[in-house]
Amino acid sequence: MGIVVLGTVALDSVKTPFGKRVDLLGGSAAHFSMSARLFTQVSLVAIVGKDFPKKHINFLSSKKLNLTSLIIDPGKTFRWEGEYKGDLNTALTLDTQLGVLSCFKPEISGVQRKIKNIFLANVDPDIQRHLLGKMHSAQLVGLDSMNYWISTKRKELIKLLKLVDIYVANDQEARSLSGETNLIKAAKALKRYGAKMVLIKKGENGVLFYSDKFIFSLPAYPVEKVIDPTGAGDTFAGGFMGYLAKSGKINPVILKKALAYGTIAASFNVEDFGLARTAKLKFADLEHRLNKFRNCFVF
Amino acid sequence: MGIVVLGTVALDSVKTPFGKRVDLLGGSAAHFSMSARLFTQVSLVAIVGKDFPKKHINFLSSKKLNLTSLIIDPGKTFRWEGEYKGDLNTALTLDTQLGVLSCFKPEISGVQRKIKNIFLANVDPDIQRHLLGKMHSAQLVGLDSMNYWISTKRKELIKLLKLVDIYVANDQEARSLSGETNLIKAAKALKRYGAKMVLIKKGENGVLFYSDKFIFSLPAYPVEKVIDPTGAGDTFAGGFMGYLAKSGKINPVILKKALAYGTIAASFNVEDFGLARTAKLKFADLEHRLNKFRNCFVF
Repeated sequence: MGIVVLGTVALDSVKTPFGKRVDLLGGSAAHFSMSARLFTQVSLVAIVGKDFPKKHINFLSSKKLNLTSLIIDPGKTFRWEGEYKGDLNTALTLDTQLGVLSCFKPEISGVQRKIKNIFLANVDPDIQRHLLGKMHSAQLVGLDSMNYWISTKRKELIKLLKLVDIYVANDQEARSLSGETNLIKAAKALKRYGAKMVLIKKGENGVLFYSDKFIFSLPAYPVEKVIDPTGAGDTFAGGFMGYLAKSGKINPVILKKALAYGTIAASFNVEDFGLARTAKLKFADLEHRLNKFRNCFVF
Repeated sequence: MGIVVLGTVALDSVKTPFGKRVDLLGGSAAHFSMSARLFTQVSLVAIVGKDFPKKHINFLSSKKLNLTSLIIDPGKTFRWEGEYKGDLNTALTLDTQLGVLSCFKPEISGVQRKIKNIFLANVDPDIQRHLLGKMHSAQLVGLDSMNYWISTKRKELIKLLKLVDIYVANDQEARSLSGETNLIKAAKALKRYGAKMVLIKKGENGVLFYSDKFIFSLPAYPVEKVIDPTGAGDTFAGGFMGYLAKSGKINPVILKKALAYGTIAASFNVEDFGLARTAKLKFADLEHRLNKFRNCFVF
């Protein structure tokens, strides 16, 4: 049991049609943790700067995350500034300040190295590989990336795919890395690169899961009031991987239920800015909405 | 039992990355009929010109469609020419020749006027209203339209919405007519215009169903080889309305199953040009794929 998540812990500034927020606690690992923590103990592997507010550290601690491997470096915390317009499906990045992320060498304690479930959230593929090399007990490895690395570190990313069980990508990334427009063809191509399973996130259009044995497809949970979609994909991955880690095995029903938990967790994330909604999330909230979700399509 | 479909019977010329076809039998009513016929007797209300090949009439007859109200006019058959590129999600219209469609006044026999289920597929809203005015026994009325009418006959279309049970639109049309980007908000707005139920087709991303009582959302059936998506929406509507007509009542399970039959019928349609695949479709094919579809998401 337990899961290690490597990723970013960031200060996000975001503007959507519903308002503007500055220096919110964010980042791929933080969003992932908010949903994964509902299923299993989460060990955060990340880096922040000395400007990182103490209240955020206290907050992460209060959520029972293991922060042993959260490095606090003398530099500045990674910052992202973005804006969403119209249907809120695409973020426009206004500014990125890497700060301490540019010299991030993840460290991990001896105890944490024995954890069997790992999620390599979006950071430089070299950093992802560096951590994975230390995790000799790894049994279930998930990987996320982004278009920036697909463009600039394509070879490294493809090498890394051979080492992972589940590659999680959004539809644009899947198309861009595979060169295929049809998403099933894209998933097949990504599988040929080496990932045993491929999970393509389509935002408001749900998710497609592909392995040699199964194709699964789930719609998104219908959300009328999308306030801020930042971190929805990471929150999805946290629910998905968290449930798999808790289950300790993989079969079709567990995979579909994991996809559903990820979907539900993401549907809460978009209903408020940053971590505002998922910070308060309880397992009972997931269960309640999961039942409503089932009724959307089970006949 | 039985359903009346008003719409176009056309000669389609289409180009996709998989080839080019000229003067295929097509049109909204023809595509609708290919799936609806698997559930119930279909009465076709449409117009063609004297240039319309006899072999197509024979074909429609061979599919047990009631052609009593198919007008053969001295003019020319409606023709559409289009092209799909890339992910095949959007048709680029290259040419439209209305021909006999420009003076279409639908006629319907006394017997057919008593049919309780009606689908007003995409034609001029004034023509749709004209036919609906004659159908005094109507119990279940479905309506489709297109962006052209949303732009040019918005008022007429909105008036018509008050008279229908189910408005079927694709996501672009739903957004355009409602002025809302979020699809649930769009569906709510369309419901306020008067349609009791709203069904939003999202192509490869499935379908969203909205009424005051229920929200349903189904993914598309995963199709790897999309050859020609022309008529997929009409084929969907035929499966959906056909199953509802056959069921003779409406409840959540029946609605979701109708959405699933529509989805499956559409998934066959896109696998070949024009009606090539759906002309051969049997009910057992639908049932077989429906079970595979269930396994994509039921957990």
